[in-house]
Amino acid sequence: MTYSLKTPLLALAATALPVAAMAQDATPTAVPTEVNFILTTLLFLIGGFLVFFMAAGFAMLEAGLVRSKNVTMQLTKNMALFGLACIFYYLIGFNLMYPGDAWIVPNVIGALSPTSLEPVGLAAADADLSYASVGSDFFFQLMFCAATASIVSGALAERIKLWPFLIFVVILTAVIYPVQASWKWGAGFLDQAGFLDFAGSTVVHSVGGWAALTGAIILGPRIGKYRDGRVTPMLGSNLTLATLGTFILWLGWFGFNGGSQLAMGTVGDVADVSRIFVNTNAAAAGGVVVALILTQVLYKKPDLTMILNGALAGLVSITAEPLTPSIGAATLIGAVGGVIVVFTVPLLDKFRIDDVVGAIPVHLVAGIWGTIAVIFTNSDASLGAQLYGIITVAIFVIVSSAVVWFILKAIMGIRVPQEAEVTGLDMSELGMEAYPEFAQN
Amino acid sequence: MTYSLKTPLLALAATALPVAAMAQDATPTAVPTEVNFILTTLLFLIGGFLVFFMAAGFAMLEAGLVRSKNVTMQLTKNMALFGLACIFYYLIGFNLMYPGDAWIVPNVIGALSPTSLEPVGLAAADADLSYASVGSDFFFQLMFCAATASIVSGALAERIKLWPFLIFVVILTAVIYPVQASWKWGAGFLDQAGFLDFAGSTVVHSVGGWAALTGAIILGPRIGKYRDGRVTPMLGSNLTLATLGTFILWLGWFGFNGGSQLAMGTVGDVADVSRIFVNTNAAAAGGVVVALILTQVLYKKPDLTMILNGALAGLVSITAEPLTPSIGAATLIGAVGGVIVVFTVPLLDKFRIDDVVGAIPVHLVAGIWGTIAVIFTNSDASLGAQLYGIITVAIFVIVSSAVVWFILKAIMGIRVPQEAEVTGLDMSELGMEAYPEFAQN
Amino acid sequence: MTYSLKTPLLALAATALPVAAMAQDATPTAVPTEVNFILTTLLFLIGGFLVFFMAAGFAMLEAGLVRSKNVTMQLTKNMALFGLACIFYYLIGFNLMYPGDAWIVPNVIGALSPTSLEPVGLAAADADLSYASVGSDFFFQLMFCAATASIVSGALAERIKLWPFLIFVVILTAVIYPVQASWKWGAGFLDQAGFLDFAGSTVVHSVGGWAALTGAIILGPRIGKYRDGRVTPMLGSNLTLATLGTFILWLGWFGFNGGSQLAMGTVGDVADVSRIFVNTNAAAAGGVVVALILTQVLYKKPDLTMILNGALAGLVSITAEPLTPSIGAATLIGAVGGVIVVFTVPLLDKFRIDDVVGAIPVHLVAGIWGTIAVIFTNSDASLGAQLYGIITVAIFVIVSSAVVWFILKAIMGIRVPQEAEVTGLDMSELGMEAYPEFAQN
Repeated sequence: MTYSLKTPLLALAATALPVAAMAQDATPTAVPTEVNFILTTLLFLIGGFLVFFMAAGFAMLEAGLVRSKNVTMQLTKNMALFGLACIFYYLIGFNLMYPGDAWIVPNVIGALSPTSLEPVGLAAADADLSYASVGSDFFFQLMFCAATASIVSGALAERIKLWPFLIFVVILTAVIYPVQASWKWGAGFLDQAGFLDFAGSTVVHSVGGWAALTGAIILGPRIGKYRDGRVTPMLGSNLTLATLGTFILWLGWFGFNGGSQLAMGTVGDVADVSRIFVNTNAAAAGGVVVALILTQVLYKKPDLTMILNGALAGLVSITAEPLTPSIGAATLIGAVGGVIVVFTVPLLDKFRIDDVVGAIPVHLVAGIWGTIAVIFTNSDASLGAQLYGIITVAIFVIVSSAVVWFILKAIMGIRVPQEAEVTGLDMSELGMEAYPEFAQN
Repeated sequence: MTYSLKTPLLALAATALPVAAMAQDATPTAVPTEVNFILTTLLFLIGGFLVFFMAAGFAMLEAGLVRSKNVTMQLTKNMALFGLACIFYYLIGFNLMYPGDAWIVPNVIGALSPTSLEPVGLAAADADLSYASVGSDFFFQLMFCAATASIVSGALAERIKLWPFLIFVVILTAVIYPVQASWKWGAGFLDQAGFLDFAGSTVVHSVGGWAALTGAIILGPRIGKYRDGRVTPMLGSNLTLATLGTFILWLGWFGFNGGSQLAMGTVGDVADVSRIFVNTNAAAAGGVVVALILTQVLYKKPDLTMILNGALAGLVSITAEPLTPSIGAATLIGAVGGVIVVFTVPLLDKFRIDDVVGAIPVHLVAGIWGTIAVIFTNSDASLGAQLYGIITVAIFVIVSSAVVWFILKAIMGIRVPQEAEVTGLDMSELGMEAYPEFAQN
Repeated sequence: MTYSLKTPLLALAATALPVAAMAQDATPTAVPTEVNFILTTLLFLIGGFLVFFMAAGFAMLEAGLVRSKNVTMQLTKNMALFGLACIFYYLIGFNLMYPGDAWIVPNVIGALSPTSLEPVGLAAADADLSYASVGSDFFFQLMFCAATASIVSGALAERIKLWPFLIFVVILTAVIYPVQASWKWGAGFLDQAGFLDFAGSTVVHSVGGWAALTGAIILGPRIGKYRDGRVTPMLGSNLTLATLGTFILWLGWFGFNGGSQLAMGTVGDVADVSRIFVNTNAAAAGGVVVALILTQVLYKKPDLTMILNGALAGLVSITAEPLTPSIGAATLIGAVGGVIVVFTVPLLDKFRIDDVVGAIPVHLVAGIWGTIAVIFTNSDASLGAQLYGIITVAIFVIVSSAVVWFILKAIMGIRVPQEAEVTGLDMSELGMEAYPEFAQN
């Protein structure tokens, strides 16, 4: 076509049959198996770079929500945790998570070996034409593992020491995340029990959330946060960057959920990926609008940080099942995520659990909600299996995280000295301010 | 190939015929119809996430160009308008815009129903193999609708109340945008009249521009902007983020214009998408360089905000016809966009129309120019039909927007109280600063 | 599939053979030649927009690493250089770089003519079905040329005049970059000599690096940088944006290296693109982790700017050969890049070469290392050919850049007046601050 014609969809559909009939005389119909392989591989590559970019989203969100005296540290943690996740998921995590037939303990603990890629210039005859290249699959899965670690860094901000945090990240990305992920996505016992989690409301988000919660409790709140029974607001230093981070995460989520279709080489698969994109977006919108309205009603003033976390909670909520809902259902599932944020953030403060960026409401509580919500739109789901998955993963992550946190606390301490926290971690721990020229109020 | 060889293009072309001839013995040539469907769907998904990201671009551009006391409000508006656009385009807009045979008033007003998606795991036999999945089409079109609303928010910044603005957004995205869009892209009367607008210089950008202009006039200028016949500069608070926003918008425009090819399943279509990418980029470059040179010549100093708006005006200018121009023609079309910005920004100030971010020059004036410029490179275009489209849309949007703005003004008021405006909307309306720790000059 | 099943990879592989065998009865296997063309064109479009976004990455990195009084200038330079690169690579560069059979001096200097695109709606019969559309190829290559210019702008920040810099950019993008690039990627004498550079450790990064080094020496250091034999730290004004810029560049690098496979229409090619994504990411991670550990060991405090540059140096290091290494080898190659940054940054200061953002260590020194490192994993590489390429390009770029810089210095001066530099380029040269409202310490 030499000029634009955004043809109306239904009109097109009306004429589609004869066109298709005509076309079928001249052109082949079916997708060749090599094309299937290429398209699914492409899905992982595109999905993978979108999820990669979520690392920037987390970094911006967290840097925007901490006080300026801790920004350099937060950025350092985000860069470092991503680098470490890449190395340890390659060395240990990936094969532990997808052991195939190489389980050490069947359906519970997988194989120990670094990832190796297919040869350069893979021959079509040597490829699994029904799936995708190993490299693309590894690339995509690695980004999920890194995202899990990013979730933890926000909750523990402004008081945790750098190195104990990074050691925790190594254990999380090498062992904790992959082991529990194998139970579902590695075809382990949770998968066999009928537990459903499409893209990781539990496997990714609640895992990050449990690790963050455990850490936040063991670490304790920031100095001055809870004083004389009152909560002292500690305002984020840069809401523009927090908003940018939220938009980047929203963008990345199309890859996160869409890529989790794990196939793009058939009409049905690509139409499913489309459904997932639409529903993922709708859930985020639901979270935004509910947080907007609720904060207006409750506090008489809309609260931007709640709205941002509402968007993210909407996204987490739809992650366990972004495919089967209608657009309306997806919007509602996300909207409940928004409600959760608005009510859980103050609740955590009641328990004096200091979660700097709201990671626990967003990733843990909305993650649990999203995992349960699968039963409303997917007839294959059962509440029992969903609860079984949620609880099993919870116990494993809480126990293993707590053990690691307590060992780190015993050996090297996990909290910066009091003066360092008051001064800010940037100057005390790193000797480098994020905004050295700008005067503070 | 086991090592890199960026083979020269012409050399390759010279050897292409025998290679192709050989290949044709062994391998099939034509694109299977299912692959066509997958590829066009993929175009919408990629184009859609790129246009989605423009929401972040608008947010950063606007947050960077308002004063720091209004940044949180601007961010809140951008998040909220996007969420609302998603919900109301789903509930009403999409089917109103693409009614197919379900027009209520033939060619003028479409059907009223929420969007429903194809079933999970769509069977190839049930798909319109000549087009794309409904979900991907909806996803792509939704992002255009949201972009239209984003255009309005910048022009009215720093003095409009949150809720009346959001109510306007609901009406814009549910009704105003879809109705006029159906006239062209829904195969309504403008399409039948031969009006051409490939990706929306008129249908998207001028619509946002007219709604913004109408609102800016009714709302009036910011306090102190025009005093004693002089224009008081009100400087943007963060040019780095404004620049980032511009780059993000530029990136998103590849999806905006490239996806509007609406097909990627043939050699001709993907080569056209390539032309569109190149021309879109060239027009932006033309806008940048002209704004750079013009501001140097006129003011002796290059003006970064003009350069940013020059890039955007170049992009808007090429949007009505990014396919047919040569690279040189595209550069020139965009360059005229740059000229428009440099001369229209002060002109608006002459008329005491206060457009905070330059949205009216960029989206409205360059949008009109771009729509007219179609006649220079596309032989199917006529000046009459282009003017007919421009004027019809203008009248409809001006009248309907003005009615909405006046009703909102009468019922609830659209402007914040004077003290609130002076204090800044962030503290007065939201109680939350974007940069709470940084001292102000 | 109606619910998620992240099937374990090895399990799938085990069942792949029978599935594939079954499939081959019903469905075709081979990739049709038109699909090959579409997929490779798509690779260039996706790769191209990712590399485009690197322009934003460079802008944010540089704006974050200069002092706030020079931020508007740095942003202006980055926008303007990109616009100019687009125009001059179109007018001259592209055909000079890929002359095919139209060399003026065989294998050394190519043809002089602007780029023209294929006709709208290219017929499959007129397309080189073994490659991709000209538009997509131009789009992709243009972004490499622009990236080269971006490298220069960072090193010379905070003291170079705008217009001489932009004139240099015109000559760099129209002539210097394309001529030397044609020697390798245009199938010129370096290609024939067996020099290997997959995606441009030498052809792009070291070229930008040599031009920056030559410019930095001729321009001299910033006032006060080296005083009484001591190095005065001049801190970056916004490390959050510098971090964002690094993440954006990392994202863009998937397009940069992945797209340089130049083919995606076979199983082998897309699997290679996957390898490249994985290795590119691994190298960046290696650079991050080594810079983190080394700065902890050497300075007792991790240094975020070193970590950011470590990531970038890792990326540059793998760019000459991202395909053949294993993941482990790629991580190590990138890790050496991190070592290079940590030791070369202070070394440059020893020589009183003032490189504001660390562009020379990252792009030049790591670029040389990456080019040499090809011999460790690619058996087609020879140390002699690699050194021949490195040295030939070095001599050409140093000499041609120096000539241009000296001519510009003689005619118009390249350095701002001393007072302007002290005041800051934003107010003195542009009359516009990037952060006008924020008080300075």
